[in-house]
Amino acid sequence: MAKFDFVVLGSGPAGRRAAVQAAKLGKSVLVIDNRERVGGVSVHTGTIPSKTLRETALNLSGWRERGFYGRSYRVKRHIEASDLTERLGKTLGHEIEVLEHQFARNGVRTMIGAARFVGPHMLAVRSSDGGGMSEQQVEADRVLIAVGTEPYRPEGIPFDGRRVLDSDQFILAPRVPRSLTVVGGGVIGLEYATIFAALDVPVTLVEPRPRLLEFMDQEMVDHFVYQLRDHGMTLRLSSEVDRIEFGDDDCPVCVLSDGRELRSEMVLYTAGRRGATASLNLGVTGIETDERGRIRVDPGTFQTSAAHIYAAGDVIGWPSLASTSMEQGRAAACHAFEQPLPKSGSNFPIGIYAVPELSSVGLTEEEARRRGIAVECGIARFRETSRGHIMGVESGIVKLVFELATRRLLGVHIIGEGATELVHIGQAVIELGGTIDYFIDNSFNYPTLAEGYKVAALDAWNRLRHREGTVLAFRGRAAG
Amino acid sequence: MAKFDFVVLGSGPAGRRAAVQAAKLGKSVLVIDNRERVGGVSVHTGTIPSKTLRETALNLSGWRERGFYGRSYRVKRHIEASDLTERLGKTLGHEIEVLEHQFARNGVRTMIGAARFVGPHMLAVRSSDGGGMSEQQVEADRVLIAVGTEPYRPEGIPFDGRRVLDSDQFILAPRVPRSLTVVGGGVIGLEYATIFAALDVPVTLVEPRPRLLEFMDQEMVDHFVYQLRDHGMTLRLSSEVDRIEFGDDDCPVCVLSDGRELRSEMVLYTAGRRGATASLNLGVTGIETDERGRIRVDPGTFQTSAAHIYAAGDVIGWPSLASTSMEQGRAAACHAFEQPLPKSGSNFPIGIYAVPELSSVGLTEEEARRRGIAVECGIARFRETSRGHIMGVESGIVKLVFELATRRLLGVHIIGEGATELVHIGQAVIELGGTIDYFIDNSFNYPTLAEGYKVAALDAWNRLRHREGTVLAFRGRAAG
Repeated sequence: MAKFDFVVLGSGPAGRRAAVQAAKLGKSVLVIDNRERVGGVSVHTGTIPSKTLRETALNLSGWRERGFYGRSYRVKRHIEASDLTERLGKTLGHEIEVLEHQFARNGVRTMIGAARFVGPHMLAVRSSDGGGMSEQQVEADRVLIAVGTEPYRPEGIPFDGRRVLDSDQFILAPRVPRSLTVVGGGVIGLEYATIFAALDVPVTLVEPRPRLLEFMDQEMVDHFVYQLRDHGMTLRLSSEVDRIEFGDDDCPVCVLSDGRELRSEMVLYTAGRRGATASLNLGVTGIETDERGRIRVDPGTFQTSAAHIYAAGDVIGWPSLASTSMEQGRAAACHAFEQPLPKSGSNFPIGIYAVPELSSVGLTEEEARRRGIAVECGIARFRETSRGHIMGVESGIVKLVFELATRRLLGVHIIGEGATELVHIGQAVIELGGTIDYFIDNSFNYPTLAEGYKVAALDAWNRLRHREGTVLAFRGRAAG
Repeated sequence: MAKFDFVVLGSGPAGRRAAVQAAKLGKSVLVIDNRERVGGVSVHTGTIPSKTLRETALNLSGWRERGFYGRSYRVKRHIEASDLTERLGKTLGHEIEVLEHQFARNGVRTMIGAARFVGPHMLAVRSSDGGGMSEQQVEADRVLIAVGTEPYRPEGIPFDGRRVLDSDQFILAPRVPRSLTVVGGGVIGLEYATIFAALDVPVTLVEPRPRLLEFMDQEMVDHFVYQLRDHGMTLRLSSEVDRIEFGDDDCPVCVLSDGRELRSEMVLYTAGRRGATASLNLGVTGIETDERGRIRVDPGTFQTSAAHIYAAGDVIGWPSLASTSMEQGRAAACHAFEQPLPKSGSNFPIGIYAVPELSSVGLTEEEARRRGIAVECGIARFRETSRGHIMGVESGIVKLVFELATRRLLGVHIIGEGATELVHIGQAVIELGGTIDYFIDNSFNYPTLAEGYKVAALDAWNRLRHREGTVLAFRGRAAG
């Protein structure tokens, strides 16, 4: 029977990073995944395919050029399922190849099969073996559970993979419906809803809560909502889907709890996700899961209630970002093998790959207020930069939150094309303790969207100046 | 006769920023420009139109999508002059409108006409006035010369605005030639040469020096040159154009000094630029210019040899970037009106909007070596990031230069789409004193090209680790 220093269940961002880290520390490492190939949700049905779909939709629709060539501009007039799947296949193939190469280079072993605990240090793995199934046992000194999540499917919703789909079903065989209802205005729901709106599909979004994205800066969410409506999306906030029926024409009809009916060719049901822990037989380890199958861990070490078993990634819940999952996996592997815990920045960026993109790092204006920190904010619109004119950008906003007492940058909130890249400029300034002066004193390439930081800082500066009411504070700086 | 605290000659980036700065200090300000509308070279024939042309060419050719759809992919098969001019007109109109609004909002007066000194504090401005010309005199307490540059036209080159053009002539009426020879491999020459190569025009570039872009990191320039050739451009380095003749077919023929002949439909001659100072009658002020019409200034205050006359922007020479010109204008205005000089970052970014884009901030590897600083470098290719796969990016590189003794980031060099935006992440880390740990310890949005910083830092980290040869230095960090 095989024995390993470290067995990692799952090969998504958390598992992958943990496995490579442990291998670099000289440990014997086995990664077990129950998909046909490695990569986890991130590669197969999550981050990578949805972002690839987004890129394909924006390229083929000509979305980014419509500011110039008008709302009816199209690169390709009829976008079909094959347009979407061709590029998905290429990207996924590439990702998996890179990952397999990385495992091989670092001496990480992999096994395809369904793992379950048969003892605290013992796993049984069922694999398909030619025609039948075989099972083998593996002994592990330390274990990392990084199995990720699967869509949560409430009872009574008639998922059929054709008319009513969850996000995993959808992305495995994407197509362009004539009309779409998206149930659930979380990150996944918003990403798909806006991608299809960019393809000119009539989209209705149904969300029980009265506001979207409550963890984001609400001023930015207001802009976001405005843009969704401006692009023709119908939003039904504070609305719950009571049931889904099928009409005479075979089309699904979402019946809301207030009796209203929404008919569309397809329903994409995104009601959150649950930890993919049901088949792990966690009982023998003493580890318990919550009502959504998630595992609780020590937030510093990522240990579960069983000290030699760690958990990381989406299976432990918030924030469920590929980027933070990687850091969690690395930290877990370091702790498991008595290495100092890696430091980590006090803030992590959030990226929402909707159309338009949203990204954020540090404190929102509301959060600063809640903490009793006096702040001043500055705003810039992309169209105030020359780069914005050149690209024909009509929307896009940078919002900076500065602490009044120290003039330090506390938060950055960006909406618009490239937001997920641009936010890292502000992240560096926040993490390295920079103030508003950083943006005033340094020059930016011209023309860039990054100049929006300077414009936003000057905007905050002008407000600060009026607030302080003194000429001294001006110091001959602002020139906006 | 009108009298102003501050008269600014030219309304490009330097003049514009200086004028607004002085107005914000409560001074009376007049801007004089000899073009029909404000904006300077930057708006009319320089930065803005060339970058707009670039964006148009990349959009309409589908260049950014060729990684996926293949080298023969085109969004629009025949790109014509009208495609180029339509978007140019819109962008310029927008830029000028913003600028005029900014002047009006800040109470800056403007005058269109050709100015010349008639005394140290006195200017005469000739303007067209209905049918004829009129002249008026203006008295100035302080003056800023920010007249920019014009193309340098060596004697004997038969510029005719149709077959043999300088860059100003070209951009005023752009068209797509069937073949193009670009003389001069400076920034302007490279930008135009690569834009037309992206439009599949056969381009030959002639440059007397053996290497291109000697102020950039040479490893990056090597990659750049490789890509130019890979895209089909012909480079004739160490080659001088002796004369230009016309063939029987009316096509210009560049005869090189070794006798070789280059025939093409159009020759774009970019032999550098000269300060547009010839008509200013500088003699009465005692200010002298060099052989290229440039004015020497005190590098801290931007004062010329006449203490009340300042000069800023391209007219003072290197680095001739819109971004640095703005900072110079702001500094000049502050000094002129006894305000503390603004601080400025110790490094400014350089952006070259060729295809591919290049951008750089801080020290090159060569410059660090010259200064005797021991460094280690890290490299990442965009295609090592998931974002790179999704975008179908095949080239694109981030190079980071770290100081060995302090682990501080000293330089960032990027080639590829978005380089001019991405460089600002590294600029913040350099200016705020960050080390390699910044990139290792912080998380990046996934998927982004910005992750290339992390990959490059891990690459440098692995080299450092081997160099130090100790396990301690590893500290369980690298997971690449």
